[in-house]
Amino acid sequence: MAVNLSPPRPQDLLPVKGVRLGIAQAGIRKAGRKDLLLMRLAEGTRVAGVFTQNRFCAAPVQVAKEHLASGRPPRALLVNTGNANAGTGKTGIADARASCEHAARLLGCDPREVLPFSTGVIMEPLPVERIVAGLPACIADLREDNWARAAEAIMTTDTVPKARSGRAGSAATVTGIAKGAGMIRPDMATMLGFVATDAAVAQDALERLVADTAANSFNCISVDGDTSTNDSFILIATGAGGRCDPSALRDAVLEVSQGLAQAIVRDGEGATKFITVQVEKGRDEAESKRVAYSIAHSPLVKTAFFASDPNLGRLLAAIGNSGVRDLDVNRVELHLDDVQVARDGGRAPAYREEDGQRVMGKSEITVRVVLNRGAAVATVWTCDLSHEYVTINAEYRT
Amino acid sequence: MAVNLSPPRPQDLLPVKGVRLGIAQAGIRKAGRKDLLLMRLAEGTRVAGVFTQNRFCAAPVQVAKEHLASGRPPRALLVNTGNANAGTGKTGIADARASCEHAARLLGCDPREVLPFSTGVIMEPLPVERIVAGLPACIADLREDNWARAAEAIMTTDTVPKARSGRAGSAATVTGIAKGAGMIRPDMATMLGFVATDAAVAQDALERLVADTAANSFNCISVDGDTSTNDSFILIATGAGGRCDPSALRDAVLEVSQGLAQAIVRDGEGATKFITVQVEKGRDEAESKRVAYSIAHSPLVKTAFFASDPNLGRLLAAIGNSGVRDLDVNRVELHLDDVQVARDGGRAPAYREEDGQRVMGKSEITVRVVLNRGAAVATVWTCDLSHEYVTINAEYRT
Repeated sequence: MAVNLSPPRPQDLLPVKGVRLGIAQAGIRKAGRKDLLLMRLAEGTRVAGVFTQNRFCAAPVQVAKEHLASGRPPRALLVNTGNANAGTGKTGIADARASCEHAARLLGCDPREVLPFSTGVIMEPLPVERIVAGLPACIADLREDNWARAAEAIMTTDTVPKARSGRAGSAATVTGIAKGAGMIRPDMATMLGFVATDAAVAQDALERLVADTAANSFNCISVDGDTSTNDSFILIATGAGGRCDPSALRDAVLEVSQGLAQAIVRDGEGATKFITVQVEKGRDEAESKRVAYSIAHSPLVKTAFFASDPNLGRLLAAIGNSGVRDLDVNRVELHLDDVQVARDGGRAPAYREEDGQRVMGKSEITVRVVLNRGAAVATVWTCDLSHEYVTINAEYRT
Repeated sequence: MAVNLSPPRPQDLLPVKGVRLGIAQAGIRKAGRKDLLLMRLAEGTRVAGVFTQNRFCAAPVQVAKEHLASGRPPRALLVNTGNANAGTGKTGIADARASCEHAARLLGCDPREVLPFSTGVIMEPLPVERIVAGLPACIADLREDNWARAAEAIMTTDTVPKARSGRAGSAATVTGIAKGAGMIRPDMATMLGFVATDAAVAQDALERLVADTAANSFNCISVDGDTSTNDSFILIATGAGGRCDPSALRDAVLEVSQGLAQAIVRDGEGATKFITVQVEKGRDEAESKRVAYSIAHSPLVKTAFFASDPNLGRLLAAIGNSGVRDLDVNRVELHLDDVQVARDGGRAPAYREEDGQRVMGKSEITVRVVLNRGAAVATVWTCDLSHEYVTINAEYRT
């Protein structure tokens, strides 16, 4: 059901010098599917990440943050699907550490140089022994051109693997993968996004870049308004390609990351529409974003999009419901693509139902809200709410 | 699909001296259904109300607030379904005023003594001429024992009319009606609740009572997290029965109002489960409520309830996702009815999947979260998210 989203073609994904990827079928939850990924990083690689703000933050997130904070340059990322190792208490932490220790032993590095990531069912014990058993196959499989298979290995309810590549000028390449289709309303980053470049970047610049990029890509999407326990967005700079113009790099990283973030929405659980909500002329970015998310999270708005029904009063209700207490609704304008729907607190005089209907029938729609209170803009990408969403989530564990 | 909810039996609804109700079929949106209600109030009646906080607050809400603020004691309430007169700008205000003026002329009172209420589709012009044409039939129909038919006349996507009666000691009667099934996350009150008593109550006491009651009934429910443009909760005291013990009256008004609020959730769009979310030992009521609503609004939690699937990690994720930034998840306990599910940041040692499964199979379930941070409690009533919800809202206008 993904909206205008094709699997990446392996030949379109650029290898990143200094990053090798190995995949295995470890049978973590189901047999016969790729569910374990090892990303091996060359010496000298720098890594920066942002993580979920969910208080039930998963064990691997806690361990990955701790390992990053140790100051030791990471030499490997270990990612499993099928089990989130979240809501697992002290045992979960021990399991995440044990996975890192085992990988470190095989790779000949310090356990703190391995960052663990998990995604899947919450509140089930992590089957460490299956990860341990799968690691040799990952290591045997390590290759620079394995990005497409790596994107497959991190899928859960995703129907399409998500990967993107770009170039920063002629100097550096940027390639990333991501996964996620539900429990998507990233607060710092989304459920497993990994972007790597061979550019050389200083650690503090890399940390600024990961935060800026997250704010303008993964932090601008929502499928269902639920912030996951395992969200992690990791930016890797191997330096193997040497220095590169910072602004060209920023653009390339942002383009890859936005493409991945939008791919998550296009493959949102049950999605049939890809919706861009753009809120303009807010007093500040926070209130613009608040209005945008109020629209993006309204089940009434989302079901109207699913039905292709221009029941646009629901958009007004969501705008009024955003918590911006001093909003003067008489100054608000609402547009659906090129059609002006509302102004002066009510329906625009020229609005015709058939124009609304025409736009609602499309698979990609922009909702544009003009608050006329200031100059701040916010954009959020979201999808509709369909029967398939209920089916997927009612049957997730079966 | 309503969960354990039967229509009220007319003989169970107590007339309230001083309140007469008249119903008509005005054809406001569809022919052949009751859609216009006039509540005629005896001289000396006091009225207090609380209204939606949605900034796209409907025209009738604005006019009703203005009329209440005029200080003139209301003599009539005029309620239509089929059209919300919301998102209708200046024309909507004029239409609401015109309806009041016409009713006042027929009743021989001041237009400011008529309070207008509307519910239905947003952003469509109110067909005032149909209301005008229907008013004589309402007036001819005025009776004290018309509460059951009045409950029917205010329904939209409701499948069951909602009405309750109670007694405050032996002195006074309390009867109320309400409607609502979707766009239900009242911020001050819910989409049209009217509760009347024949007790004599001073205006300031009545205003405190309506606010207290709303806070503990209509403001504790959610179907879909969307706050309506038209929410209004009105408390009427005719005084025809004389004075009555204030605490007996408070209890009776609260019981009727909680019954109506819960009826809205039981009849929530597509509901198959009635879920009580109780959050205990929070630092203050606000944070307890925040956690309760985070659970009540999570589509992942709601679809798990629909599937009777004890996918209880989603409950932990919702708790962690509530925005209580300093929550120590290792101190949180989670119970499903009598079954302890989680403690110490993970699954409770004694928890067995079959126990969770047994509770999830029921139609009424209590989720109890113990935060262990203080003494504050909050309760929220909600329902599950089913295929039927998507169907209802994808086809609302057809």
